[in-house]
Amino acid sequence: VEAVLTRLAETLEARKGADPETSYVARLYEGGLDMILKKIGEEATELVIAAKTGEAGDIVHETADLWFHTLVMLSHVDVGLDQLIAELERRAGVSGLEEKASRGS
Amino acid sequence: VEAVLTRLAETLEARKGADPETSYVARLYEGGLDMILKKIGEEATELVIAAKTGEAGDIVHETADLWFHTLVMLSHVDVGLDQLIAELERRAGVSGLEEKASRGS
Amino acid sequence: VEAVLTRLAETLEARKGADPETSYVARLYEGGLDMILKKIGEEATELVIAAKTGEAGDIVHETADLWFHTLVMLSHVDVGLDQLIAELERRAGVSGLEEKASRGS
Amino acid sequence: VEAVLTRLAETLEARKGADPETSYVARLYEGGLDMILKKIGEEATELVIAAKTGEAGDIVHETADLWFHTLVMLSHVDVGLDQLIAELERRAGVSGLEEKASRGS
Repeated sequence: VEAVLTRLAETLEARKGADPETSYVARLYEGGLDMILKKIGEEATELVIAAKTGEAGDIVHETADLWFHTLVMLSHVDVGLDQLIAELERRAGVSGLEEKASRGS
Repeated sequence: VEAVLTRLAETLEARKGADPETSYVARLYEGGLDMILKKIGEEATELVIAAKTGEAGDIVHETADLWFHTLVMLSHVDVGLDQLIAELERRAGVSGLEEKASRGS
Repeated sequence: VEAVLTRLAETLEARKGADPETSYVARLYEGGLDMILKKIGEEATELVIAAKTGEAGDIVHETADLWFHTLVMLSHVDVGLDQLIAELERRAGVSGLEEKASRGS
Repeated sequence: VEAVLTRLAETLEARKGADPETSYVARLYEGGLDMILKKIGEEATELVIAAKTGEAGDIVHETADLWFHTLVMLSHVDVGLDQLIAELERRAGVSGLEEKASRGS
C-alpha cells in the first residue's frame, strides 16, 4: 500500500513537466484547481451512484478514481502525501476513530 | 502508508461489533449505506470548499475525512482494501496514468 | 417565474421523443438515470466552486444549470413539476422555513 | 410557481434580520457562505441517493431541499431571483435547450 501511494504521488509530481497533449494528469494541472475540484465532485458522485447500484467492481473503480484525483489535487497545491498519511495515522488509533462522535460532524 | 491504511481497515472491520452509542463508526454502519454515502458527499464538498479557501491544514484534514469515509463504505459493503490497492497499483504505472486520457472521462 | 418553469418542464417532456443526435436533453434521457444524476453532482460542484470564486454571473449560470438538470431528472422519473412546487409552497410559509431547525438536518 | 419562488425569495430576504436561535435560515446566514455551500453539497448527494432508491416522495423532498438551499445561497450573496429566472428563461427556448450539446459540457 505504502509503495503504491508513494509511487503514485511521485509519478504525479513528475507529470508536472509533462505535455498536456499526451498526459491526462498534465492536462488536469493545466486546467488548474477548479478543473481538478470538478473532477473530485464528479468522482464522488459516481462513487455514490456505483455504491447504490451495488457492483463491487464499479465501487472499487470509482473509489480509486476519487482517491487518484484527490492525490492530483494535493500535488497541485504542493501538499505532500506524508501530511495526509500523518492525518490518517492519527485516526488509526482507537481514540482517533471515536473522536468524530464527540465533535458531532 | 501501507501500515496505516491496513490498520485503519482492520480497525473499521473490528468496529462492526461495537456499540453505536460509543463508536462513531458503529453508528455509521448502523445508519446503513445511505448514511455513509451522505457522509462521502458531505466530505467531498467540504474538501472542495477547503481547497478553494486554500488552507493547507484544512485541505489535509478534509482529504483524510473523505478517504476515511470511503474506507468505512468499502468495509460496509465487504470490499477488501486489497482490491482498492490493486486498482491504484494499476494506475501507478505510466500507462495507467495516461489511460484516462484515451477513454476521455 | 411560473411561466418559465412550466415552459421548461413542457419542453423537457416534449424532448422525450427527440433524436439524441441533435438534442442534448434526449441524449441525457438516453444515457439514463445515472447519467442525469452524474450531471446533477457535477453541476452542484461547479456551483460550489463558482460561489467560492465569487463571480455573480457564474453563480447564476451554475445555479440555472443545476436547476435545469434536476428538472430533466424529474421529467425522466415522471415526477410532475406541480409536486415540486407543492413542496416548495409548503416551505414558503413561516413555519415551513423554520421546520428544518427542529428536525435538525 | 412564480408566486411561490418569489414568496420564498422574499421570506429568505426578510430572515436576514432574524434571530439565529429561532430561525434555521438566519442560522445559515450566520454560518456564512461555506456553511450554506456544504448544505448544497449535502442536499445534492441526498437527491442522488433518493433518485437511486426510487421513492417519488423522497425525490420531490430532496429536490425541494436542494432548490431551497440554492435560494438561500443566492440571497446570501445578494443575487436576485430575477437573474436566475432570466437565465432559465434563456434555456426555455428551443435553442437554449440544445445549446449545451454544442458547447459539450
